Amino acid sequence: MEPEVITSLQNPRVKQLVKLRDRRPRDQAGQFLVEGFRQIRRALDKGYAPVELYVCPEWYPGEQGNEAGLIADAQAAGARVFELSKSAFAKVAYRERPDGLLAVLPQWQNGLDDLPLSPTPFLLVVEAIEKPGNLGTILRSADAAGVDGLIVCDPVTDLFNPNVVRASTGVLFSVPVAIAESDAVRAWLQAKGIRSVATTPSATQLHTDADLTGSMAIVMGSEQYGLSDDWLREADDRVRIPMAGQADSLNVAMATIITLFEAVRQRN
Amino acid sequence: MEPEVITSLQNPRVKQLVKLRDRRPRDQAGQFLVEGFRQIRRALDKGYAPVELYVCPEWYPGEQGNEAGLIADAQAAGARVFELSKSAFAKVAYRERPDGLLAVLPQWQNGLDDLPLSPTPFLLVVEAIEKPGNLGTILRSADAAGVDGLIVCDPVTDLFNPNVVRASTGVLFSVPVAIAESDAVRAWLQAKGIRSVATTPSATQLHTDADLTGSMAIVMGSEQYGLSDDWLREADDRVRIPMAGQADSLNVAMATIITLFEAVRQRN
Repeated sequence: MEPEVITSLQNPRVKQLVKLRDRRPRDQAGQFLVEGFRQIRRALDKGYAPVELYVCPEWYPGEQGNEAGLIADAQAAGARVFELSKSAFAKVAYRERPDGLLAVLPQWQNGLDDLPLSPTPFLLVVEAIEKPGNLGTILRSADAAGVDGLIVCDPVTDLFNPNVVRASTGVLFSVPVAIAESDAVRAWLQAKGIRSVATTPSATQLHTDADLTGSMAIVMGSEQYGLSDDWLREADDRVRIPMAGQADSLNVAMATIITLFEAVRQRN
Repeated sequence: MEPEVITSLQNPRVKQLVKLRDRRPRDQAGQFLVEGFRQIRRALDKGYAPVELYVCPEWYPGEQGNEAGLIADAQAAGARVFELSKSAFAKVAYRERPDGLLAVLPQWQNGLDDLPLSPTPFLLVVEAIEKPGNLGTILRSADAAGVDGLIVCDPVTDLFNPNVVRASTGVLFSVPVAIAESDAVRAWLQAKGIRSVATTPSATQLHTDADLTGSMAIVMGSEQYGLSDDWLREADDRVRIPMAGQADSLNVAMATIITLFEAVRQRN
């Protein structure tokens, strides 16, 4: 079936794609954007079906390959396909170098009880992360470290921000993520018998001296404020990363990687 | 002394500031750009004197404070100060949210023998890093881990790229960095009795099982190609980071942090 062709920059679908970059219209629509071959491929491979796929052959880079196969798979998964003119695609693309593929996917919302837990859960909890790039990098670290899941508390930047999706390089489709309020997360962890280990520069114990084995959640605070008092007080343990240089050399994404991989070392 | 005021976008100094974003004119001038209060402050605090400082009070955010003190310190260090009109500053600023301060500093070029080595050196070597953001993050990691120095082999992105400077958050002014060719680095390490530990996904040994104590250099490859065959063959040891998720979840900057902090743990 030949796709419908859109050439007007005033087309309502073009306007809606631009709107989906912003949180309010994104949440109202219950949808989000996934741009680029690799990321859309990963969504499809993990069973996430686009509702719409916008393509523009004039933007294909001509090297990465199988756009036709991707389009066929998206259609088979139920996506409506539209072809955009070069200028219309330039308007809706948010990447610097578009590759002519942009998908709209339905948002999902998982709670704590949707997380698939292993017998000895290894979790990562982040509170009120502000920068999309950091949340994306944190998702990648969580994937690489093999956590059971990521719990996002009191989100400031939402999981479906285009820059989170981009920075996660498709990991958004493979790491189980739950969104919940901090109070509920603490109660849930306690009920499950999962220890919480808060990371804070004010701790006396180094992360390498703490026990990061067993049922355990590493808890990271926001870029600007660190962890809230409630988390610092109610966590089962507090650790810090040794810092040799400037106080702000490590950002939250870097501190998360370091702590997660120390846990991986201890758990191996 | 009142600064000279520049309002024309055609002023040769304005044009030169824009040119300094690109490597060739930057290297020809032997200068580079440092933008923003915090970074210029760090340069001054570490003894790096701007040759020129461009200011625009209309862009001051009005919260971070002491612009007058910074300007006085820059002048005392020998900088010529120019005041730009709002539109002229908008043209020369490369940050998204300019704060009205842009400095021009002389480049420096340190060789291997300029690195100050402790009795048991702990070094980081990176080969042909391509992305400025990664090189900046690697500088921050090197600072946080307290390495003796960073050796940049066969640079693809240069140390004075504005995005390296920005991503390094001023660490460029505190971590000793040497630039050299890979062959020369290997010969120098051997002459100094410093073991090289190459990080590569093809290693059988985990980084946590290797000995990262003693006189030692961790060697990281480029984003796209990893380490060159020469490094892989001639390194004293090869290690890999255990990966639970997607093959590309960890980028070179993340892998560097993980390996550096495992070395910090072993060395403590």
